[in-house]
Amino acid sequence: MQISFYNPTRLVFGKGKLKELGSYAKEYGKKALIVYGGGSIKKNGVFDSAVASLKDAGIDFVECGGIEPNPKIDSVRRGIDLIRKNGCDLIIAIGGGSAMDCSKAIGAGALYDGDPWDMIFHGQENVYIPTRCMPIITVPTLAATGSEMNPGAVISNSETHEKSFVQTDALFPKVAVVDPTLTLTVPKNQTGYGVCDIIVHLTESYFNGVDGTPIQDEFALATIKNCMQYGIKAYNNGSDLEAREQVQWSSILALNGFVNCGTNGAFPVHMIEHTVSGIYDITHAAGLAIINPSWMRFTITHGGNVDKFARFASYLFGIQNDGDKVKTALAGVDKYEEFLKEIGCPVRFSELNIDESNYEKIADITLKVIHDENGKLPARPALSKEDILTILKNAS
Amino acid sequence: MQISFYNPTRLVFGKGKLKELGSYAKEYGKKALIVYGGGSIKKNGVFDSAVASLKDAGIDFVECGGIEPNPKIDSVRRGIDLIRKNGCDLIIAIGGGSAMDCSKAIGAGALYDGDPWDMIFHGQENVYIPTRCMPIITVPTLAATGSEMNPGAVISNSETHEKSFVQTDALFPKVAVVDPTLTLTVPKNQTGYGVCDIIVHLTESYFNGVDGTPIQDEFALATIKNCMQYGIKAYNNGSDLEAREQVQWSSILALNGFVNCGTNGAFPVHMIEHTVSGIYDITHAAGLAIINPSWMRFTITHGGNVDKFARFASYLFGIQNDGDKVKTALAGVDKYEEFLKEIGCPVRFSELNIDESNYEKIADITLKVIHDENGKLPARPALSKEDILTILKNAS
Repeated sequence: MQISFYNPTRLVFGKGKLKELGSYAKEYGKKALIVYGGGSIKKNGVFDSAVASLKDAGIDFVECGGIEPNPKIDSVRRGIDLIRKNGCDLIIAIGGGSAMDCSKAIGAGALYDGDPWDMIFHGQENVYIPTRCMPIITVPTLAATGSEMNPGAVISNSETHEKSFVQTDALFPKVAVVDPTLTLTVPKNQTGYGVCDIIVHLTESYFNGVDGTPIQDEFALATIKNCMQYGIKAYNNGSDLEAREQVQWSSILALNGFVNCGTNGAFPVHMIEHTVSGIYDITHAAGLAIINPSWMRFTITHGGNVDKFARFASYLFGIQNDGDKVKTALAGVDKYEEFLKEIGCPVRFSELNIDESNYEKIADITLKVIHDENGKLPARPALSKEDILTILKNAS
Repeated sequence: MQISFYNPTRLVFGKGKLKELGSYAKEYGKKALIVYGGGSIKKNGVFDSAVASLKDAGIDFVECGGIEPNPKIDSVRRGIDLIRKNGCDLIIAIGGGSAMDCSKAIGAGALYDGDPWDMIFHGQENVYIPTRCMPIITVPTLAATGSEMNPGAVISNSETHEKSFVQTDALFPKVAVVDPTLTLTVPKNQTGYGVCDIIVHLTESYFNGVDGTPIQDEFALATIKNCMQYGIKAYNNGSDLEAREQVQWSSILALNGFVNCGTNGAFPVHMIEHTVSGIYDITHAAGLAIINPSWMRFTITHGGNVDKFARFASYLFGIQNDGDKVKTALAGVDKYEEFLKEIGCPVRFSELNIDESNYEKIADITLKVIHDENGKLPARPALSKEDILTILKNAS
């Protein structure tokens, strides 16, 4: 077992923590760029509360709103311009994964002379790996991405239809101010998508990681179970604070590197989905909900770690293993797919009116973005172009 | 649920990692104070390997050996003198909890004008809380304390028989270089004590924490189970690397703040034991092995969270709850005590020739070091002097 773990983000989690934003922010700067999305935070009072806390702490700010759901590199460029023009020394991201991811690319891009697309891994020869970033404070308003406490960002290029990532130590936020009351007003569909997203973050590492990680496996399963149990509650009753808290705590755990420490799992479902939402601009988690069960079924029957799939089935759904592990494993996927439907997720491309016409393109772009020495998509086992096409077709 | 989490220590874990010590050390300094214990690292080659790696990286060093098992404040003072006389700019702790804890107190004390005992919490009016510390790299040679990746240190005062702690953000090591092969030569008794120590770190938070932390509870139980499963293997066959790896990974998880995130558990068994080993200079974990089962039995029958004890019994030992939770809970403690015997731990004071003569003194010193507004030892439920005496007597 080889583990390399580092996560210096300070986590402040709990009901009412938004009020403390200013007290953390003043440790890092005097003029903040506030990065946010479609403006719901202006309607539900979150923006006002954040600004009140910043004012109390003597912090001025500039706004960078309108970050789109799959944040575009153009938004990153816009944010960088705003920082340079206004002399901001701090970034505060208030929103979901898009606002937070965009903030990371802005924070690193503002300290880089070249174009920020250089840092997004898309098969280019010379990737710019940021070693510096402006201080960032994240304030998630959605339980899903885990971006609040990790150093990753996913950015899209609307010209090339590429959607890919940058992930490096410099991008860790300084502080994650996580106030679960901010998620009480998240609509039903976004709540379900968030739960789906969290679970896939956990399944990717659990199924694609190395062997010999018994504690990490238990942690992943326990977090999935908790997320499912409270996720359905949060979906059915958005104002259930306990459920919101547990789902948000699961979202942080799922992708802050701790639960999957040392598993070195690939993220094949994410890689394929990034291409899909890069082309169709669908919600990330909707794409995951469609691709993940199909990837699971393919993997179970094509050399995946069937023991882990069977354990997934028995731990989460109480499916008894009657000796036929493949059958047990597949039954677990069926149950998982049923759960996805229960939380309002699509499970076939047809539900989003996506036909087969771009499957070849999806496979090609995915493999262009990332592939191993055999030209395959890293996964356990690695996936050829044909494999990806089969997974996509089975999800039609 | 209120969580405040921060742990900026970089963890580098795996077979052979000791060779990389120099490459990490050179990021932080040019002249290291190497803090170590009784000298076993000079016999088993660990010291030579560490020094070779430091030399390759161009790092000079000064030795501060002979740190005793329950590190004394005098050793801290000696380390501070060595740093000042030799101009060291970095501390490397190679050893068990004592070398690592001592290093933290040295690192903070070297940047403080007063006496380092000021920072050890012992009921004094003005505690010095360190805000600065020299960079520290930890290289644990024992899986037990978890000190390698946390900001706590336990230091004893041989004059006053006080043994207490300092814990603050400034004391986080910069890097924990954890090479499980270093633990292959740990003798049987120390291996068993380490396993005991790890489990108690987990039970303290699990049993004394707040309600409503389902994921943390599962994480704690999973880590205890893993530690027991591999702990007995490591005890019976010291050269089983997989077992050593899993036990060491458990030791890190048990006390780096992540598993018990937000549980706010008190550490009553530790507090009582610190006083016992402050008086008798026994091995910390031997004291824990004696006190923990007695504390558990007392707590189960005096208002503790019986549900959690019953779950502990069923999760770890498969004891079916037949409706009488107290009976189930107590049966779990019996099994846990049996396990402690299997790994060579004492479970009664008489085994260490400790009689009742100092019980009053133990209770008094413990409550002097820490007590709540009612004069009781923080725990769930809090413990009066009488309660502590009962726990001690039942462990005679």
